[in-house]
Amino acid sequence: MTRTTFVIPVYPGTTHLDFTAPHQFFARVPDAEVIVASRAGGTLECDGLTFAGLPRLADVAACDVLCVPGGFGTFDAILDADFLAEVRRLAAAARFVTSVCTGSIVLAAAGLLDGRRAACHWYWRDVLARFPGVTVDAARVVRDGHVITGGGVTAGLDLAIAVVAELAGEDRARAIQLGLEYAPEPPFEAGRPELADGPTLDAVRTALSARDATVRERVDAFLAGR
Amino acid sequence: MTRTTFVIPVYPGTTHLDFTAPHQFFARVPDAEVIVASRAGGTLECDGLTFAGLPRLADVAACDVLCVPGGFGTFDAILDADFLAEVRRLAAAARFVTSVCTGSIVLAAAGLLDGRRAACHWYWRDVLARFPGVTVDAARVVRDGHVITGGGVTAGLDLAIAVVAELAGEDRARAIQLGLEYAPEPPFEAGRPELADGPTLDAVRTALSARDATVRERVDAFLAGR
Repeated sequence: MTRTTFVIPVYPGTTHLDFTAPHQFFARVPDAEVIVASRAGGTLECDGLTFAGLPRLADVAACDVLCVPGGFGTFDAILDADFLAEVRRLAAAARFVTSVCTGSIVLAAAGLLDGRRAACHWYWRDVLARFPGVTVDAARVVRDGHVITGGGVTAGLDLAIAVVAELAGEDRARAIQLGLEYAPEPPFEAGRPELADGPTLDAVRTALSARDATVRERVDAFLAGR
Repeated sequence: MTRTTFVIPVYPGTTHLDFTAPHQFFARVPDAEVIVASRAGGTLECDGLTFAGLPRLADVAACDVLCVPGGFGTFDAILDADFLAEVRRLAAAARFVTSVCTGSIVLAAAGLLDGRRAACHWYWRDVLARFPGVTVDAARVVRDGHVITGGGVTAGLDLAIAVVAELAGEDRARAIQLGLEYAPEPPFEAGRPELADGPTLDAVRTALSARDATVRERVDAFLAGR
Protein backbone atom coordinates (compact mmCIF):
# COMPACT_ATOMS: atom_id res chain seq x y z
CA MET A 1 0.00 0.00 0.00
CA THR A 2 1.32 3.43 -0.84
CA ARG A 3 1.67 6.16 1.73
CA THR A 4 -1.45 8.28 2.15
CA THR A 5 -1.07 11.87 3.26
CA PHE A 6 -3.94 13.68 4.98
CA VAL A 7 -3.67 17.40 5.59
CA ILE A 8 -5.88 19.25 8.08
CA PRO A 9 -5.54 23.03 7.81
CA VAL A 10 -6.42 24.69 11.10
CA TYR A 11 -6.88 28.35 12.01
CA PRO A 12 -7.70 30.39 15.13
CA GLY A 13 -11.19 29.52 16.32
CA THR A 14 -11.27 25.99 14.93
CA THR A 15 -13.57 23.62 16.86
CA HIS A 16 -11.06 20.97 17.87
CA LEU A 17 -13.38 17.96 17.65
CA ASP A 18 -13.99 18.85 13.99
CA PHE A 19 -10.47 17.62 13.29
CA THR A 20 -9.43 15.43 16.21
CA ALA A 21 -12.16 12.91 15.36
CA PRO A 22 -11.18 12.57 11.67
CA HIS A 23 -7.50 12.62 12.72
CA GLN A 24 -8.03 9.60 14.97
CA PHE A 25 -9.70 7.62 12.19
CA PHE A 26 -7.22 8.73 9.49
CA ALA A 27 -4.25 7.92 11.74
CA ARG A 28 -5.37 4.27 11.83
CA VAL A 29 -5.09 3.90 8.04
CA PRO A 30 -1.96 1.85 7.32
CA ASP A 31 0.94 3.98 6.07
CA ALA A 32 -0.98 7.16 6.71
CA GLU A 33 0.62 10.46 7.50
CA VAL A 34 -1.81 12.94 9.05
CA ILE A 35 -0.53 16.51 9.12
CA VAL A 36 -2.28 19.26 11.06
CA ALA A 37 -0.91 22.55 9.76
CA SER A 38 -1.66 26.24 10.17
CA ARG A 39 -0.74 29.30 8.18
CA ALA A 40 1.73 30.53 10.80
CA GLY A 41 2.81 27.11 12.10
CA GLY A 42 3.80 26.54 15.73
CA THR A 43 1.05 26.36 18.32
CA LEU A 44 -2.67 26.96 18.11
CA GLU A 45 -5.19 27.07 20.92
CA CYS A 46 -8.65 25.70 20.12
CA ASP A 47 -11.44 25.73 22.71
CA GLY A 48 -8.97 25.29 25.55
CA LEU A 49 -6.63 22.70 24.02
CA THR A 50 -3.25 23.86 22.72
CA PHE A 51 -1.87 22.03 19.71
CA ALA A 52 1.89 22.34 19.20
CA GLY A 53 4.47 21.52 16.58
CA LEU A 54 2.23 22.48 13.66
CA PRO A 55 4.05 22.94 10.36
CA ARG A 56 3.26 25.94 8.19
CA LEU A 57 0.75 25.18 5.46
CA ALA A 58 3.13 26.70 2.92
CA ASP A 59 5.70 24.04 3.85
CA VAL A 60 3.34 21.15 3.15
CA ALA A 61 4.07 19.96 -0.37
CA ALA A 62 0.87 18.10 -1.22
CA CYS A 63 -1.72 15.68 0.12
CA ASP A 64 -4.03 12.88 -0.91
CA VAL A 65 -6.84 14.11 1.33
CA LEU A 66 -7.50 17.66 2.41
CA CYS A 67 -9.87 17.89 5.39
CA VAL A 68 -10.91 21.39 6.46
CA PRO A 69 -12.49 21.69 9.91
CA GLY A 70 -14.95 24.36 10.97
CA GLY A 71 -15.49 26.55 13.98
CA PHE A 72 -16.43 30.09 14.90
CA GLY A 73 -13.10 31.21 13.41
CA THR A 74 -14.25 30.17 9.92
CA PHE A 75 -15.65 33.61 9.28
CA ASP A 76 -12.30 35.28 9.94
CA ALA A 77 -10.42 32.57 8.05
CA ILE A 78 -12.31 33.35 4.83
CA LEU A 79 -10.88 36.89 4.96
CA ASP A 80 -7.31 35.53 5.11
CA ALA A 81 -6.32 35.40 1.44
CA ASP A 82 -3.04 33.60 2.16
CA PHE A 83 -4.86 30.87 4.08
CA LEU A 84 -7.37 30.40 1.27
CA ALA A 85 -4.55 30.29 -1.28
CA GLU A 86 -2.90 27.42 0.60
CA VAL A 87 -6.21 25.56 0.84
CA ARG A 88 -6.70 26.03 -2.90
CA ARG A 89 -3.16 24.88 -3.71
CA LEU A 90 -3.44 21.72 -1.59
CA ALA A 91 -6.93 20.95 -2.92
CA ALA A 92 -5.74 21.19 -6.53
CA ALA A 93 -3.63 18.05 -6.25
CA ALA A 94 -5.69 16.14 -3.67
CA ARG A 95 -7.59 12.97 -4.47
CA PHE A 96 -10.31 14.00 -2.02
CA VAL A 97 -11.27 17.45 -0.81
CA THR A 98 -13.26 17.19 2.40
CA SER A 99 -14.61 19.30 5.24
CA VAL A 100 -16.41 19.10 8.55
CA CYS A 101 -18.97 21.60 9.87
CA THR A 102 -18.35 25.17 8.65
CA GLY A 103 -15.18 23.95 6.96
CA SER A 104 -17.36 23.80 3.84
CA ILE A 105 -17.62 27.60 4.04
CA VAL A 106 -13.81 27.73 3.80
CA LEU A 107 -13.98 25.44 0.76
CA ALA A 108 -16.66 27.66 -0.77
CA ALA A 109 -14.60 30.80 -0.12
CA ALA A 110 -11.63 29.11 -1.78
CA GLY A 111 -13.80 28.53 -4.85
CA LEU A 112 -13.78 24.78 -4.42
CA LEU A 113 -17.54 24.21 -4.23
CA ASP A 114 -18.56 25.91 -7.45
CA GLY A 115 -21.28 23.75 -8.99
CA ARG A 116 -21.25 21.31 -6.09
CA ARG A 117 -23.57 20.04 -3.38
CA ALA A 118 -22.17 20.38 0.12
CA ALA A 119 -23.03 19.89 3.79
CA CYS A 120 -22.55 22.33 6.65
CA HIS A 121 -23.41 22.69 10.35
CA TRP A 122 -27.21 23.01 10.40
CA TYR A 123 -27.25 26.52 11.86
CA TRP A 124 -24.91 27.93 9.20
CA ARG A 125 -26.42 26.31 6.10
CA ASP A 126 -27.91 29.59 4.90
CA VAL A 127 -24.49 31.23 5.18
CA LEU A 128 -23.01 28.52 2.95
CA ALA A 129 -25.91 29.09 0.55
CA ARG A 130 -24.76 32.69 0.04
CA PHE A 131 -21.66 31.52 -1.83
CA PRO A 132 -22.35 31.45 -5.56
CA GLY A 133 -22.47 28.04 -7.17
CA VAL A 134 -22.98 26.02 -3.98
CA THR A 135 -26.02 23.79 -3.47
CA VAL A 136 -26.52 23.20 0.23
CA ASP A 137 -27.45 19.64 1.18
CA ALA A 138 -28.83 18.80 4.63
CA ALA A 139 -27.38 15.27 4.66
CA ARG A 140 -24.83 14.38 7.32
CA VAL A 141 -22.20 13.38 4.76
CA VAL A 142 -22.46 14.63 1.18
CA ARG A 143 -20.37 13.29 -1.67
CA ASP A 144 -20.19 15.16 -4.96
CA GLY A 145 -17.38 13.80 -7.11
CA HIS A 146 -14.13 14.01 -5.18
CA VAL A 147 -15.58 16.51 -2.72
CA ILE A 148 -16.95 15.00 0.51
CA THR A 149 -18.39 17.34 3.13
CA GLY A 150 -19.90 16.70 6.53
CA GLY A 151 -22.41 18.41 8.80
CA GLY A 152 -21.66 19.95 12.18
CA VAL A 153 -18.75 18.90 14.41
CA THR A 154 -19.51 15.24 15.23
CA ALA A 155 -20.38 14.52 11.58
CA GLY A 156 -16.60 14.34 11.26
CA LEU A 157 -16.70 10.78 12.58
CA ASP A 158 -19.12 9.63 9.88
CA LEU A 159 -17.26 11.64 7.25
CA ALA A 160 -13.94 10.12 8.25
CA ILE A 161 -15.23 6.57 7.88
CA ALA A 162 -16.67 7.43 4.46
CA VAL A 163 -13.32 8.88 3.36
CA VAL A 164 -11.37 5.89 4.68
CA ALA A 165 -13.73 3.56 2.79
CA GLU A 166 -13.04 5.45 -0.44
CA LEU A 167 -9.29 5.48 0.06
CA ALA A 168 -8.54 2.17 1.68
CA GLY A 169 -11.66 0.11 1.04
CA GLU A 170 -14.73 -0.77 3.06
CA ASP A 171 -13.07 -3.67 4.88
CA ARG A 172 -10.43 -1.34 6.28
CA ALA A 173 -13.05 1.25 7.18
CA ARG A 174 -15.10 -1.35 9.06
CA ALA A 175 -12.01 -2.54 10.94
CA ILE A 176 -11.10 0.99 12.02
CA GLN A 177 -14.72 1.58 13.05
CA LEU A 178 -14.64 -1.56 15.22
CA GLY A 179 -11.24 -0.68 16.66
CA LEU A 180 -12.59 2.73 17.72
CA GLU A 181 -15.85 1.07 18.85
CA TYR A 182 -18.02 3.44 16.85
CA ALA A 183 -21.49 2.09 17.59
CA PRO A 184 -22.97 5.34 18.88
CA GLU A 185 -25.82 5.46 21.40
CA PRO A 186 -26.59 9.12 22.04
CA PRO A 187 -28.57 9.41 25.28
CA PHE A 188 -31.01 11.90 23.72
CA GLU A 189 -32.68 12.41 20.36
CA ALA A 190 -31.49 15.97 20.04
CA GLY A 191 -28.62 16.07 17.57
CA ARG A 192 -30.48 17.57 14.61
CA PRO A 193 -33.03 20.38 14.42
CA GLU A 194 -35.67 17.89 13.20
CA LEU A 195 -35.07 15.69 16.25
CA ALA A 196 -34.71 18.34 18.93
CA ASP A 197 -37.66 19.59 20.95
CA GLY A 198 -38.76 23.23 20.66
CA PRO A 199 -37.06 24.58 23.80
CA THR A 200 -33.74 22.91 22.88
CA LEU A 201 -33.85 24.31 19.37
CA ASP A 202 -34.76 27.77 20.66
CA ALA A 203 -31.93 27.73 23.19
CA VAL A 204 -29.30 26.83 20.61
CA ARG A 205 -30.65 29.21 17.97
CA THR A 206 -30.64 32.04 20.50
CA ALA A 207 -27.10 31.29 21.63
CA LEU A 208 -25.73 31.06 18.08
CA SER A 209 -27.68 34.07 16.82
CA ALA A 210 -25.46 36.29 18.98
CA ARG A 211 -22.89 35.78 16.23
CA ASP A 212 -25.20 36.53 13.29
CA ALA A 213 -24.26 40.18 12.81
CA THR A 214 -20.52 39.54 12.88
CA VAL A 215 -20.81 36.57 10.55
CA ARG A 216 -22.94 38.56 8.10
CA GLU A 217 -20.40 41.39 8.14
CA ARG A 218 -17.51 39.00 7.42
CA VAL A 219 -19.34 37.17 4.64
CA ASP A 220 -20.50 40.46 3.10
CA ALA A 221 -16.88 41.65 3.14
CA PHE A 222 -15.70 38.44 1.51
CA LEU A 223 -18.35 38.46 -1.20
CA ALA A 224 -17.77 42.17 -1.93
CA GLY A 225 -14.08 41.50 -2.45
CA ARG A 226 -14.36 38.57 -4.84
CA MET B 1 -24.45 28.44 38.23
CA THR B 2 -21.23 27.59 40.01
CA ARG B 3 -17.99 26.93 38.22
CA THR B 4 -17.53 23.28 37.23
CA THR B 5 -14.01 21.88 36.96
CA PHE B 6 -13.30 18.86 34.77
CA VAL B 7 -9.89 17.21 34.95
CA ILE B 8 -8.61 14.85 32.28
CA PRO B 9 -5.40 13.08 33.32
CA VAL B 10 -3.37 12.05 30.26
CA TYR B 11 -0.28 9.89 29.92
CA PRO B 12 2.01 8.70 27.12
CA GLY B 13 0.06 6.47 24.75
CA THR B 14 -3.35 8.03 25.39
CA THR B 15 -5.76 7.73 22.44
CA HIS B 16 -6.47 11.39 21.82
CA LEU B 17 -10.11 11.02 20.75
CA ASP B 18 -10.81 9.38 24.14
CA PHE B 19 -10.44 12.83 25.68
CA THR B 20 -10.84 15.38 22.88
CA ALA B 21 -14.46 14.30 22.38
CA PRO B 22 -15.46 14.63 26.06
CA HIS B 23 -13.38 17.84 26.25
CA GLN B 24 -15.41 19.42 23.44
CA PHE B 25 -18.70 18.58 25.16
CA PHE B 26 -17.49 19.57 28.64
CA ALA B 27 -16.08 22.87 27.32
CA ARG B 28 -19.60 23.88 26.26
CA VAL B 29 -20.96 23.63 29.80
CA PRO B 30 -21.45 27.18 31.10
CA ASP B 31 -18.75 28.24 33.56
CA ALA B 32 -16.79 25.08 32.92
CA GLU B 33 -13.06 24.80 33.28
CA VAL B 34 -11.65 21.74 31.52
CA ILE B 35 -8.07 20.92 32.49
CA VAL B 36 -5.99 18.36 30.63
CA ALA B 37 -3.04 17.51 32.87
CA SER B 38 -0.20 15.01 32.89
CA ARG B 39 2.14 13.80 35.59
CA ALA B 40 5.13 15.67 34.14
CA GLY B 41 3.20 18.61 32.66
CA GLY B 42 4.34 20.38 29.49
CA THR B 43 3.74 18.66 26.17
CA LEU B 44 2.43 15.21 25.30
CA GLU B 45 2.25 13.57 21.91
CA CYS B 46 -0.75 11.28 21.32
CA ASP B 47 -1.19 9.41 18.03
CA GLY B 48 0.49 12.21 16.09
CA LEU B 49 -1.07 15.24 17.79
CA THR B 50 1.05 17.19 20.27
CA PHE B 51 -0.77 18.78 23.19
CA ALA B 52 1.06 21.64 24.89
CA GLY B 53 0.73 23.74 28.01
CA LEU B 54 -0.42 20.86 30.19
CA PRO B 55 -0.24 21.52 33.92
CA ARG B 56 1.20 18.90 36.24
CA LEU B 57 -1.44 16.73 37.86
CA ALA B 58 0.11 17.45 41.25
CA ASP B 59 -0.60 21.15 40.72
CA VAL B 60 -4.32 20.61 40.11
CA ALA B 61 -6.07 21.21 43.40
CA ALA B 62 -9.37 19.40 42.85
CA CYS B 63 -12.14 18.77 40.36
CA ASP B 64 -15.85 18.14 40.09
CA VAL B 65 -15.43 15.57 37.33
CA LEU B 66 -12.46 13.33 36.75
CA CYS B 67 -12.42 11.77 33.27
CA VAL B 68 -9.67 9.25 32.57
CA PRO B 69 -9.06 8.40 28.91
CA GLY B 70 -7.64 5.13 27.62
CA GLY B 71 -5.13 4.06 25.04
CA PHE B 72 -2.34 1.57 24.53
CA GLY B 73 -0.35 3.48 27.16
CA THR B 74 -2.84 2.45 29.86
CA PHE B 75 -0.84 -0.67 30.63
CA ASP B 76 2.31 1.36 31.37
CA ALA B 77 0.34 4.01 33.24
CA ILE B 78 -0.91 1.46 35.79
CA LEU B 79 2.71 0.79 36.75
CA ASP B 80 3.30 4.49 37.49
CA ALA B 81 2.49 4.73 41.20
CA ASP B 82 2.74 8.53 41.24
CA PHE B 83 0.25 8.82 38.40
CA LEU B 84 -2.18 6.48 40.14
CA ALA B 85 -1.79 8.42 43.39
CA GLU B 86 -2.80 11.65 41.64
CA VAL B 87 -5.80 9.93 40.04
CA ARG B 88 -6.81 8.60 43.46
CA ARG B 89 -6.39 12.01 45.12
CA LEU B 90 -8.47 13.83 42.49
CA ALA B 91 -11.13 11.11 42.49
CA ALA B 92 -11.53 11.32 46.27
CA ALA B 93 -13.08 14.81 46.12
CA ALA B 94 -14.79 14.56 42.72
CA ARG B 95 -18.55 14.52 42.32
CA PHE B 96 -18.20 12.14 39.35
CA VAL B 97 -15.39 9.75 38.54
CA THR B 98 -15.51 8.81 34.86
CA SER B 99 -13.49 7.07 32.17
CA VAL B 100 -13.44 6.28 28.49
CA CYS B 101 -12.14 3.06 26.89
CA THR B 102 -9.27 1.47 28.87
CA GLY B 103 -9.36 4.45 31.21
CA SER B 104 -11.47 2.16 33.41
CA ILE B 105 -8.38 -0.03 33.82
CA VAL B 106 -6.58 3.01 35.27
CA LEU B 107 -9.53 3.54 37.64
CA ALA B 108 -9.40 -0.14 38.62
CA ALA B 109 -5.65 0.03 39.23
CA ALA B 110 -6.19 3.10 41.40
CA GLY B 111 -8.64 1.06 43.49
CA LEU B 112 -11.62 3.13 42.41
CA LEU B 113 -13.75 0.34 40.96
CA ASP B 114 -13.83 -1.95 43.94
CA GLY B 115 -17.35 -3.36 44.13
CA ARG B 116 -18.46 -1.52 41.00
CA ARG B 117 -19.73 -2.27 37.52
CA ALA B 118 -17.70 -0.67 34.75
CA ALA B 119 -17.35 -0.48 30.97
CA CYS B 120 -14.20 -0.86 28.89
CA HIS B 121 -13.14 -1.11 25.25
CA TRP B 122 -14.61 -4.42 24.06
CA TYR B 123 -11.26 -6.05 23.32
CA TRP B 124 -9.85 -5.34 26.77
CA ARG B 125 -12.86 -6.28 28.90
CA ASP B 126 -11.21 -9.47 30.13
CA VAL B 127 -8.19 -7.45 31.25
CA LEU B 128 -10.45 -5.19 33.31
CA ALA B 129 -12.07 -8.32 34.73
CA ARG B 130 -8.72 -9.37 36.21
CA PHE B 131 -8.85 -6.51 38.71
CA PRO B 132 -10.38 -7.71 41.99
CA GLY B 133 -13.79 -6.30 42.83
CA VAL B 134 -14.69 -5.07 39.33
CA THR B 135 -17.78 -6.33 37.50
CA VAL B 136 -17.34 -5.76 33.78
CA ASP B 137 -20.42 -4.48 31.98
CA ALA B 138 -20.66 -4.56 28.18
CA ALA B 139 -22.91 -1.48 27.97
CA ARG B 140 -21.63 1.59 26.13
CA VAL B 141 -22.07 3.83 29.18
CA VAL B 142 -22.27 2.31 32.66
CA ARG B 143 -23.31 4.24 35.73
CA ASP B 144 -22.70 2.83 39.19
CA GLY B 145 -23.22 5.49 41.82
CA HIS B 146 -20.93 8.43 41.09
CA VAL B 147 -18.75 6.33 38.79
CA ILE B 148 -19.63 6.57 35.09
CA THR B 149 -17.52 4.61 32.61
CA GLY B 150 -17.67 4.29 28.83
CA GLY B 151 -16.71 1.71 26.23
CA GLY B 152 -14.02 2.12 23.58
CA VAL B 153 -12.84 5.50 22.24
CA THR B 154 -15.96 6.94 20.59
CA ALA B 155 -18.11 5.95 23.58
CA GLY B 156 -16.61 9.12 25.04
CA LEU B 157 -19.20 11.17 23.15
CA ASP B 158 -22.12 9.28 24.70
CA LEU B 159 -20.43 9.30 28.10
CA ALA B 160 -19.83 13.04 27.94
CA ILE B 161 -23.49 13.78 27.25
CA ALA B 162 -24.53 11.52 30.12
CA VAL B 163 -22.13 13.33 32.46
CA VAL B 164 -23.28 16.77 31.32
CA ALA B 165 -26.89 15.71 31.92
CA GLU B 166 -26.04 14.70 35.49
CA LEU B 167 -24.14 17.88 36.22
CA ALA B 168 -26.01 20.55 34.34
CA GLY B 169 -29.37 18.94 33.58
CA GLU B 170 -30.88 17.21 30.58
CA ASP B 171 -31.92 20.46 28.89
CA ARG B 172 -28.34 21.66 28.84
CA ALA B 173 -27.11 18.28 27.64
CA ARG B 174 -29.62 18.31 24.76
CA ALA B 175 -28.59 21.83 23.77
CA ILE B 176 -24.90 20.91 23.69
CA GLN B 177 -25.75 17.77 21.70
CA LEU B 178 -27.63 19.89 19.14
CA GLY B 179 -24.87 22.49 19.02
CA LEU B 180 -22.34 19.76 18.22
CA GLU B 181 -24.87 18.13 15.84
CA TYR B 182 -24.53 14.72 17.44
CA ALA B 183 -27.02 12.69 15.43
CA PRO B 184 -24.63 9.98 14.34
CA GLU B 185 -25.05 8.01 11.12
CA PRO B 186 -22.16 5.54 10.93
CA PRO B 187 -21.81 4.33 7.34
CA PHE B 188 -21.39 0.71 8.46
CA GLU B 189 -22.77 -1.55 11.15
CA ALA B 190 -19.39 -2.51 12.46
CA GLY B 191 -18.75 -0.62 15.68
CA ARG B 192 -19.31 -3.50 18.13
CA PRO B 193 -18.21 -7.13 18.01
CA GLU B 194 -21.88 -8.23 17.85
CA LEU B 195 -22.46 -6.01 14.82
CA ALA B 196 -19.25 -6.64 12.89
CA ASP B 197 -18.94 -9.39 10.31
CA GLY B 198 -16.53 -12.28 10.87
CA PRO B 199 -13.63 -11.02 8.74
CA THR B 200 -13.76 -7.55 10.33
CA LEU B 201 -13.77 -9.02 13.83
CA ASP B 202 -10.91 -11.39 12.95
CA ALA B 203 -8.84 -8.55 11.47
CA VAL B 204 -9.19 -6.36 14.56
CA ARG B 205 -8.67 -9.22 17.02
CA THR B 206 -5.52 -10.24 15.16
CA ALA B 207 -4.16 -6.69 15.09
CA LEU B 208 -4.84 -6.10 18.79
CA SER B 209 -3.63 -9.53 19.89
CA ALA B 210 -0.09 -8.48 18.96
CA ARG B 211 -0.20 -6.56 22.26
CA ASP B 212 -1.56 -9.39 24.40
CA ALA B 213 1.75 -10.65 25.80
CA THR B 214 2.96 -7.18 26.79
CA VAL B 215 -0.36 -6.28 28.35
CA ARG B 216 -0.49 -9.53 30.32
CA GLU B 217 3.06 -8.92 31.59
CA ARG B 218 2.20 -5.39 32.74
CA VAL B 219 -1.05 -6.42 34.44
CA ASP B 220 0.67 -9.41 36.10
CA ALA B 221 3.34 -7.03 37.41
CA PHE B 222 0.70 -4.64 38.73
CA LEU B 223 -1.37 -7.35 40.43
CA ALA B 224 1.74 -8.95 41.96
CA GLY B 225 2.75 -5.61 43.49
CA ARG B 226 -0.59 -4.74 45.09
